[in-house]
Amino acid sequence: MSSEFEGKPIICKAAVAWAPGEPLKIEEVQVDPPKEGEVRIKIVATSICHTDAYTLSGKDPEGIFPCILGHEGAGIVESVGPNVTSVVPGDHVIPLYTPECRECKFCKSGKTNLCQKIRATQGKGLMPDSTSRFSCKGKTIFHYMGTSTFSQYTVAAEISVAKIDSSAPLDKVCLLGCGIPTGFGAVINTAKVAHGESVAVFGCGAIGLSVIQGAKFANAGKIVAIDINPEKFELAKQFGATDFVNPLDYPDRPIQEVLVENFDGGFDYTFECSGGNTKIMRAALESCHKGWGQSIIISVANAGEEISTRPFQLVTGRVWKGTAFGGVKGRTEIPLYIKMYNDGDLKIDEFITHHFNLDQINEGFHLQHIGKCIRPIVDLFS
Amino acid sequence: MSSEFEGKPIICKAAVAWAPGEPLKIEEVQVDPPKEGEVRIKIVATSICHTDAYTLSGKDPEGIFPCILGHEGAGIVESVGPNVTSVVPGDHVIPLYTPECRECKFCKSGKTNLCQKIRATQGKGLMPDSTSRFSCKGKTIFHYMGTSTFSQYTVAAEISVAKIDSSAPLDKVCLLGCGIPTGFGAVINTAKVAHGESVAVFGCGAIGLSVIQGAKFANAGKIVAIDINPEKFELAKQFGATDFVNPLDYPDRPIQEVLVENFDGGFDYTFECSGGNTKIMRAALESCHKGWGQSIIISVANAGEEISTRPFQLVTGRVWKGTAFGGVKGRTEIPLYIKMYNDGDLKIDEFITHHFNLDQINEGFHLQHIGKCIRPIVDLFS
Repeated sequence: MSSEFEGKPIICKAAVAWAPGEPLKIEEVQVDPPKEGEVRIKIVATSICHTDAYTLSGKDPEGIFPCILGHEGAGIVESVGPNVTSVVPGDHVIPLYTPECRECKFCKSGKTNLCQKIRATQGKGLMPDSTSRFSCKGKTIFHYMGTSTFSQYTVAAEISVAKIDSSAPLDKVCLLGCGIPTGFGAVINTAKVAHGESVAVFGCGAIGLSVIQGAKFANAGKIVAIDINPEKFELAKQFGATDFVNPLDYPDRPIQEVLVENFDGGFDYTFECSGGNTKIMRAALESCHKGWGQSIIISVANAGEEISTRPFQLVTGRVWKGTAFGGVKGRTEIPLYIKMYNDGDLKIDEFITHHFNLDQINEGFHLQHIGKCIRPIVDLFS
Repeated sequence: MSSEFEGKPIICKAAVAWAPGEPLKIEEVQVDPPKEGEVRIKIVATSICHTDAYTLSGKDPEGIFPCILGHEGAGIVESVGPNVTSVVPGDHVIPLYTPECRECKFCKSGKTNLCQKIRATQGKGLMPDSTSRFSCKGKTIFHYMGTSTFSQYTVAAEISVAKIDSSAPLDKVCLLGCGIPTGFGAVINTAKVAHGESVAVFGCGAIGLSVIQGAKFANAGKIVAIDINPEKFELAKQFGATDFVNPLDYPDRPIQEVLVENFDGGFDYTFECSGGNTKIMRAALESCHKGWGQSIIISVANAGEEISTRPFQLVTGRVWKGTAFGGVKGRTEIPLYIKMYNDGDLKIDEFITHHFNLDQINEGFHLQHIGKCIRPIVDLFS
């Protein structure tokens, strides 16, 4: 399947973040053809994640403007640059903000998914050759997280592209670009929860629900959902939560104290999915069972914020960990998530609460911000 | 071997801590006979550990006075109370501040050495029946850490006593009461360092040297000793350290930055043996390799002090842990340490830098305090 634009720039619509704190603006952008080791992708659908909002807010010190945000999308390969061997035009793909080169020290360690092959340029909003493929009104527009899915066409490194089964609906499985593998993988890859072990989940947004889903998949025993918005408990229950705690019901006591008291000395595993609240990160650690409980930080905190606790918490056996993209090696594992979804073993549709077209994308940010939305789907071509 | 004092009180010498901040005072104390499940031990030799000094200083909020300190000793069973089955008079033993009942949730978990069977009373300076066996001048004297080895005779719970091979010299193997298993066990049990992995040790006192010894035993690759007192590097080298870093040589840069730069992105494992400095705990964590490095806190920090870091450190794969008594289950594992020592596979003698009799015990505290002593041996009967 060859594209009429192969080797040529494409002019298309994208939501451009011109400056921090300003709404996105829908623009006609130019997307240059992929260079060596790069892939140009027609993005069919994207969602909006907390990290996009964090960068747009201006609080992310590594945010670079103007840029095209978006890192939870899915699409179809339009054309490929020289020496690309793992995908061809027409392949269905999910762009990965955590690449998998299979060559660097990190990929070869067997201990982490944090491939560092193109980290330096990705962090600068550039492709691996230190240039951008995006421009608009004569200005260079920067990439974001190596994905920039808020554009009808984007360019990603080949190592940042997971090829998936073409039978999977792109306007659903785009959620495999971030939230679902992040929560599910935190349970399976990072914590390695085993049959019957107890789990507490701090925050029942998309990540927390994914943790609950992962914990149920792992045959955990108690799965306790914790949120200050009790409206979220119904969905948490559908995903597999067995118990529900609203910290606002205990205004006079630290929630960790309540949980340790009511749940047999604390949990085997706790997961922080609060959207970056460092106080909740501490509460999650201190809700772990003495002697062996492990707490996994999943959210990204605001720049400069720090976590703290008494070292006694660790000396008496609790373990503090974190995870990025759920420890998932995207090119290898995302196809397995697709298979689970196709087999009916992974919920994805249930996360989707709203649909927008690209022109309405700022509304999606607003609903996320006020907590009225689990995940919106943005259709790039409607 | 029966004792002439069986069932009767013993009057003997002990170093009593009458009040926080005051020197110990050598007194004649009365040591009542052991009750059910208890063992009275003639302490032949004891050492002095940082935690004794911490409690004596008054900074330990859980310190209870007057008490008999000491938790790194060795002796001979003088008599036993009813229903004691695992030791008999004449057995050589090491008292354990971390008991091993083999019955509680913690012991049966297979995940921790933190037996909780008698924790509540031990924390109050009392025997399991909530009374003390010590008195002096008509006043009750409290126990300390369930061991109180600064007395010619002490009483411990049976579950707090490790029976050892009687061929081992008590005035050497008393060090197995705390420091040596704590450091060695942190490497073997808590971190589980594997062949060729890299290790950094922050602080080269007795615990740090034990970590170095454990790391060499585990066939670690680089073993980097870090201390602001370069006099300690010679001994560290004898124990197996391969590289030496003095943070004072880098006055303008955080030591973690120097270490990550000079040692291939940081270490597979770092061990904090600083004596409780929370800033060094942070430096140890941040010296870990991105993606997989684990940092183990070993020291006890001052009350109220907290550790902190940016959560990004954990989200990018570093793991923060701690250990108490090196994860060692004392009744089971201390006999194995004795065997290693008897077989020439474990250094103990090399830790001993000074000898004192009981009357000189305050001098031992002083030398420890000013860093001029790795471990002193206090002979209770000379």
